[in-house]
Amino acid sequence: MGAVGISSVKREIRIIGWDDAPFRFGDRKTYIIGTVCRGGSWLDGVISRVIEIDGNDATEKIIGAVNGSPHKKQLRVIMLDGTTFGGFNIVDMDEIHGRTSLPVIAVVRDRPDFDSIRLALSRFKDSDLRWELTKKAGPVRPLGVKNPKTGKIKKIWFQNRGIKSDVAREIIRMSSTRSFIPEPLRMAHLIAHGIGSHE
Amino acid sequence: MGAVGISSVKREIRIIGWDDAPFRFGDRKTYIIGTVCRGGSWLDGVISRVIEIDGNDATEKIIGAVNGSPHKKQLRVIMLDGTTFGGFNIVDMDEIHGRTSLPVIAVVRDRPDFDSIRLALSRFKDSDLRWELTKKAGPVRPLGVKNPKTGKIKKIWFQNRGIKSDVAREIIRMSSTRSFIPEPLRMAHLIAHGIGSHE
Repeated sequence: MGAVGISSVKREIRIIGWDDAPFRFGDRKTYIIGTVCRGGSWLDGVISRVIEIDGNDATEKIIGAVNGSPHKKQLRVIMLDGTTFGGFNIVDMDEIHGRTSLPVIAVVRDRPDFDSIRLALSRFKDSDLRWELTKKAGPVRPLGVKNPKTGKIKKIWFQNRGIKSDVAREIIRMSSTRSFIPEPLRMAHLIAHGIGSHE
Repeated sequence: MGAVGISSVKREIRIIGWDDAPFRFGDRKTYIIGTVCRGGSWLDGVISRVIEIDGNDATEKIIGAVNGSPHKKQLRVIMLDGTTFGGFNIVDMDEIHGRTSLPVIAVVRDRPDFDSIRLALSRFKDSDLRWELTKKAGPVRPLGVKNPKTGKIKKIWFQNRGIKSDVAREIIRMSSTRSFIPEPLRMAHLIAHGIGSHE
């Protein structure tokens, strides 16, 4: 497998990173936040959508938001904080890749426990569909990322669609300028939690 | 007046910048967004509050959010996108400074037109109070800021409380790393417009 030099991935490529806002017991909807960043640095834009908690609309909402964004032409990668948003609103990574024509990389801090996920999905009428989407996201690959503040190495995990694993690894490392996770996801997380916290 | 060297202002001082979200005719409330940043670089946190459009609660909401923030101890400066939020919900800069013990700097791109503001305030029953708050924010001072991308110099304007004008000027310049306005305010603006734009 040919190694991909860091020079091949422009440091300022536009990435949109998605995370969901926290919600309370009884809530039916929550926000998802997309942050448009230049690699691991500047924030260029913020998009929000409302999704149903435990619904099936996260895929459509993300596709619509990305394709309708004024940043679409500059975007090179979609990053996701895992593949489930707002409870078990599971995204279809193939669908997002296919309909945006952009590579999709889902990043998580801890290796997903698929037995627990399958068990949690069993309460849904359409549990087979949700489990299919979970499997469709493909193999979960490890990656060592260095925390730029402490120098410590931490293993994180990712899934990729429409992009080679080696290139995905480089983009994750290059954009993790502030912590163990890429800036677009770190900022989306801060914003999603900040707007979920009022009152 | 003694010149204040750039070295005297730490480049990574924590600043919280506040801006308001757009709203539509008929809305009664809107969001204000506070972004905690290190100087002109990293986003460290996001806070949101809801204020009444044309209300009088922006001062209290900002004070409560700042004093209740886990970042309070690290914060050195409060920045505001002007002194009016959510229509004509005018802040009391003295009150914010006094009750947070932090310097307050309000920054605007264009010199405020006080004749127009006074006229707009005349429709409020408490127009005298709102006009007093507007005047209380003190003299509007000019400042030339260089756009770091284009090198162009633009004149912007600021008001300051609890901090010398010279030091306020340096903090504004130091934190304007990406555009003509300080990063905490640029990011607060992007987030406030992003969350106001859903659906």
